[in-house]
Amino acid sequence: MMEQATRAPRGRTGIAASKRTGQVALPRKRPTRILIDELHPVLDCGRYRVKRCVGDSVAVSATIVRDGHDVMRAAVQWRPGEQSRWREAPLARVDAAIDGDRWSGMIDTLDAVGRWRWRVIAWGDRFASWREELSRKIDAGQHGLGSELTEGAMLLEAICARASGEDRELLRRARHAVADDSAPERTRYEAALEPRVAAAAERWQVREDLTASEASEIEVERERARFGAWYELFPRSWGGLPGVRRALGEIAGAGFDVLYLPPIHPIGVANRKGRNDKPVAEPGDPGSPYAIGGIEGGHTAIHPDLGTLEDFDALVADARELDMEIALDYALQCSADHPWLSEHPEWFSHRPDGTLKYAENPPKRYMDIYNFDFECEEWRSLWDALRDVMLFWVEHGVRVFRVDNPHTKPLAFWEWLIASVREVEPDTIFLSEAFTRQAMMAALAKVGFSQSYTYFTWKNASWELRDYVSEIARPPLSDFLRPNFFVNTPDILSEYLQTGGPGAFAVRLLLAGTLSPSYGIYSGFERYEATPRHPGSEEYLDSEKYEVRERSFQGPLLDSVTRLNRIRRERPALQRIDNVAFLPAENDALLAYAKREGGETLIVVANVDPHRAQEGIVVVPGELGLPPVFACSDLLDGARYEWRLGRNYVRLDPASRAGHLLAVENA
Amino acid sequence: MMEQATRAPRGRTGIAASKRTGQVALPRKRPTRILIDELHPVLDCGRYRVKRCVGDSVAVSATIVRDGHDVMRAAVQWRPGEQSRWREAPLARVDAAIDGDRWSGMIDTLDAVGRWRWRVIAWGDRFASWREELSRKIDAGQHGLGSELTEGAMLLEAICARASGEDRELLRRARHAVADDSAPERTRYEAALEPRVAAAAERWQVREDLTASEASEIEVERERARFGAWYELFPRSWGGLPGVRRALGEIAGAGFDVLYLPPIHPIGVANRKGRNDKPVAEPGDPGSPYAIGGIEGGHTAIHPDLGTLEDFDALVADARELDMEIALDYALQCSADHPWLSEHPEWFSHRPDGTLKYAENPPKRYMDIYNFDFECEEWRSLWDALRDVMLFWVEHGVRVFRVDNPHTKPLAFWEWLIASVREVEPDTIFLSEAFTRQAMMAALAKVGFSQSYTYFTWKNASWELRDYVSEIARPPLSDFLRPNFFVNTPDILSEYLQTGGPGAFAVRLLLAGTLSPSYGIYSGFERYEATPRHPGSEEYLDSEKYEVRERSFQGPLLDSVTRLNRIRRERPALQRIDNVAFLPAENDALLAYAKREGGETLIVVANVDPHRAQEGIVVVPGELGLPPVFACSDLLDGARYEWRLGRNYVRLDPASRAGHLLAVENA
Repeated sequence: MMEQATRAPRGRTGIAASKRTGQVALPRKRPTRILIDELHPVLDCGRYRVKRCVGDSVAVSATIVRDGHDVMRAAVQWRPGEQSRWREAPLARVDAAIDGDRWSGMIDTLDAVGRWRWRVIAWGDRFASWREELSRKIDAGQHGLGSELTEGAMLLEAICARASGEDRELLRRARHAVADDSAPERTRYEAALEPRVAAAAERWQVREDLTASEASEIEVERERARFGAWYELFPRSWGGLPGVRRALGEIAGAGFDVLYLPPIHPIGVANRKGRNDKPVAEPGDPGSPYAIGGIEGGHTAIHPDLGTLEDFDALVADARELDMEIALDYALQCSADHPWLSEHPEWFSHRPDGTLKYAENPPKRYMDIYNFDFECEEWRSLWDALRDVMLFWVEHGVRVFRVDNPHTKPLAFWEWLIASVREVEPDTIFLSEAFTRQAMMAALAKVGFSQSYTYFTWKNASWELRDYVSEIARPPLSDFLRPNFFVNTPDILSEYLQTGGPGAFAVRLLLAGTLSPSYGIYSGFERYEATPRHPGSEEYLDSEKYEVRERSFQGPLLDSVTRLNRIRRERPALQRIDNVAFLPAENDALLAYAKREGGETLIVVANVDPHRAQEGIVVVPGELGLPPVFACSDLLDGARYEWRLGRNYVRLDPASRAGHLLAVENA
Repeated sequence: MMEQATRAPRGRTGIAASKRTGQVALPRKRPTRILIDELHPVLDCGRYRVKRCVGDSVAVSATIVRDGHDVMRAAVQWRPGEQSRWREAPLARVDAAIDGDRWSGMIDTLDAVGRWRWRVIAWGDRFASWREELSRKIDAGQHGLGSELTEGAMLLEAICARASGEDRELLRRARHAVADDSAPERTRYEAALEPRVAAAAERWQVREDLTASEASEIEVERERARFGAWYELFPRSWGGLPGVRRALGEIAGAGFDVLYLPPIHPIGVANRKGRNDKPVAEPGDPGSPYAIGGIEGGHTAIHPDLGTLEDFDALVADARELDMEIALDYALQCSADHPWLSEHPEWFSHRPDGTLKYAENPPKRYMDIYNFDFECEEWRSLWDALRDVMLFWVEHGVRVFRVDNPHTKPLAFWEWLIASVREVEPDTIFLSEAFTRQAMMAALAKVGFSQSYTYFTWKNASWELRDYVSEIARPPLSDFLRPNFFVNTPDILSEYLQTGGPGAFAVRLLLAGTLSPSYGIYSGFERYEATPRHPGSEEYLDSEKYEVRERSFQGPLLDSVTRLNRIRRERPALQRIDNVAFLPAENDALLAYAKREGGETLIVVANVDPHRAQEGIVVVPGELGLPPVFACSDLLDGARYEWRLGRNYVRLDPASRAGHLLAVENA
């Protein structure tokens, strides 16, 4: 709209002598009077896409401003990326009483995976404006409104021409009555203000000065991207892929949705690490699954000790029968024996003398690992090959990938890879394992990762949990970062678990499973495994990362796990992150929160002190919309309680219970 | 980066049979590893421009994210719109201790009016990264770092080739020493880590992976757009333009910078309003200056009772001699006698019978006013003509316009008009008089208005003032909306002034002049004029809008006004809005705040109760950076006090003082 032009020379008073020099050009066509602004939810000015899942409705809002007093209307429009027809729903002013300029409404519903577009439109309703003005004049006792009535008849004529059916006839008669200057004024007024006429006119209204905002995009993924229970195990400790197949039924029976396997590929021999991360392996040590590649193959091969590709296909098929899916680890690094080191040395970093450079984070050396050089000359063939690795597994039925340390690879690579794979298989889910600074974790989520590990394992005090969950449970983070609250990982045995005993495990399970729609357990948790390699370490002693353990699906916590997973599947309130409201508990050892969805309210109270009984007062505020007194049942043990608005006494003894999971009845 | 493609057909496992079908194209060139995000200050994704004034520095910040551990550097670049050379200043991490990803720095300084562009750049410093890694390895006691040293020598060679002067020689020697494999390792390490070498390398570093954000714009206006004291008068009450000329010296002597005149054009006769807004004028009634236009001319003519165009030019020249400027009222409406109604009927709204439609806000009728129809067929000629009106006055030396009710005209018109006029005369200042909803007030500021009237006249309680000023004193509002705190206007005689007596006037003057860099007085305020037309009205009795009054520049409050204007000119802390910090005062009748600039701190304490003495405790917090005990002098009367961090007793009796304006000494 604005064009640069040269400055005019200065004249007598120091001001430009000729006012016609260098003027800004008029707009080409008459501009709209309507300004649509501050749209939500939009992420980074549209550079990245807001995320939702299939079945979600989206609350949208915008500021809409226009000069003058005419009646304005607005709507939100949305459509799947490849369609041309917009769906539409009305927007309404948020503060209608004060004619507030913030408008809101709902996109209802996003019913397919993929990229959706949405925008806000607004327009003037001349007939409604005219009707409003006439109404005020009549109320003020004014007469002689013949000119106004003539205007109204013209507006009705235009609308009538667009209408059909009964509405057309109604509008035609109204126009005639309004235009009839032989009729008494009162009759004409009544015809003009008739509510059914107003309703019909609204249905067929002319959208004056129709203005549309820019369109924004929403990335819609399948529901599993938001909600699921994950179980992680190392196949080599379970008897390889056949052994995992045999355990599937029990794992599915406990209510898990995703079975995540650390890398299942051949493991390098050179510089293999020994048990407990010793720099040198002893004969028989299996090495780290993350030292990927050997003479048997690389990222598209399966470790011979685990089985064959047919075993893998069978595992995937069996899992599908049980409504579970297999998630693989996508770890972009190579052992010294990976075929690519010899086939494609150009993909790796070299020393000046030409030798390959192993991974380092000085002064640490990872001599069993070689990293890709994403900036190498042959980066195109490298990126293609890495994508093909993922597509290989996609072809073998994998639709969930847990990505190892994405924060040490370029963001642009992930953005391209995720889009590429989704283009082939839109249902693919990507979990980012990046324990790093918040800005990078957020950036990875923005470029496309469906889910993210979080700081959850290190948030153990009640206030830490409350602050952290509050942050990720609301926009902007909740618009693009979906948390996965693993209670432990092969790299993270938190001090809290090391020192807390069974009580700690029980409460962490309850918190993870009720605070986040996606949560996970790394095998061993259900047996209260808690011995670190040495004091102060977060590494497990005799970690499965460096040796084979004997494992099977059993442990004292599994009853609780199974119960919790069943409850989560039954209760939609536990299937989203953004519906949490923390409640005062008047004891720092207690964390209390409500989760609401539809007409359902759950209240969780957890004792984060794993050793001592703690008591407190949970305060239920009025804004939860609950009645003054309400019955609730503890879904963990069936006990029933009567709670009330305001103060409710709670006592939790870790010897018998980690917390309450109360379902409000009939509310 | 992403291209749409068709979905591949599904294969055996339900997944696309051919992974090579419909893939997302690789980026054309190797993408950067650096992501620059969340730039501040940017307004509405760059749709509108952030505002600053000449001489301002701008604090900028951005989130900069990159994979890996290499040393990254960043800078902000800026330039006036028409230049090609960027100026540059470094950015630093906000939380350097934790390697935080938020970077900040300063644009220093915006030294000319016009549109400036700025952006953030970031890059990798390979030498600094290499040096850091080498340093860690040496600290960890590692040996045999010959390969590392070879790499370092290569990096030094590349930098040396770019260097000149002493630096080049220094780098050359360092490269030689590092590369010398006949020298002891220790010697080579020392050469590599020598601080002067590091400094030289930084000066001539290669900017690897240089990445730039999008450029944002800043609209820089002259200082008067932010800071000034305004005085409003109706020329017809002062003896016309010659009379105003005679009063100029006194007005300038009181420290006013801008003299604002309501419309000076011919006034219509038909349907002229009478005194006190009577619908029908009596003979001799002058009518409202806002009913613009008569047989003598329209918006580019001067009312014959006021003088001639020569009188006006002389007024402007005299004002310039006194370092004052004349602000005119730009009121886009016509009386029934305006020449344009007959010359250009196509510019106005018509009834169906073809007659012109006077202004209405049903049921109110403004039969002396006709509004332009900005959507008429001939909108282009209308817009041109309206712009030419403003440029006419610009040619006659006017560079400040107070715009009447812009919220009833299209935003797009203002955006175009302001840009058009600024294109001819960049120093033009536009004040928006729009007492309407916040979204529209903000929109007007965004499309270009330099200043805005605000809700100040209705913010009288201490908490109202604190909340409102806090909102406009910080981003985003402070980035684009500059307030002008008129204490009264011809339309607004607040209840507070009506009932408060002289004490109310004194405290409102103090608040306006210290809270906002731009403030104004409508003549009569200095005489405590406080009689409304009738109880409950905000209109003045016998308002100058509808009759001629006898006025001259005198009144009991003028000493205070003069003193305050002098203090404001001497104290930079009072020349910005965004440097205010409200202090607790422990009495709702007291409002206390600090204003800081450079090393200077002012503390204002005002008693908003105009009738009763009030006492309280002003709490000075540590974060103001003041010493535990400090001397201050009250600029209003010279009295000196000793204040301290923490609690300070204050008592203010409206009979003697409205408040304190303390300047901290030697702090």
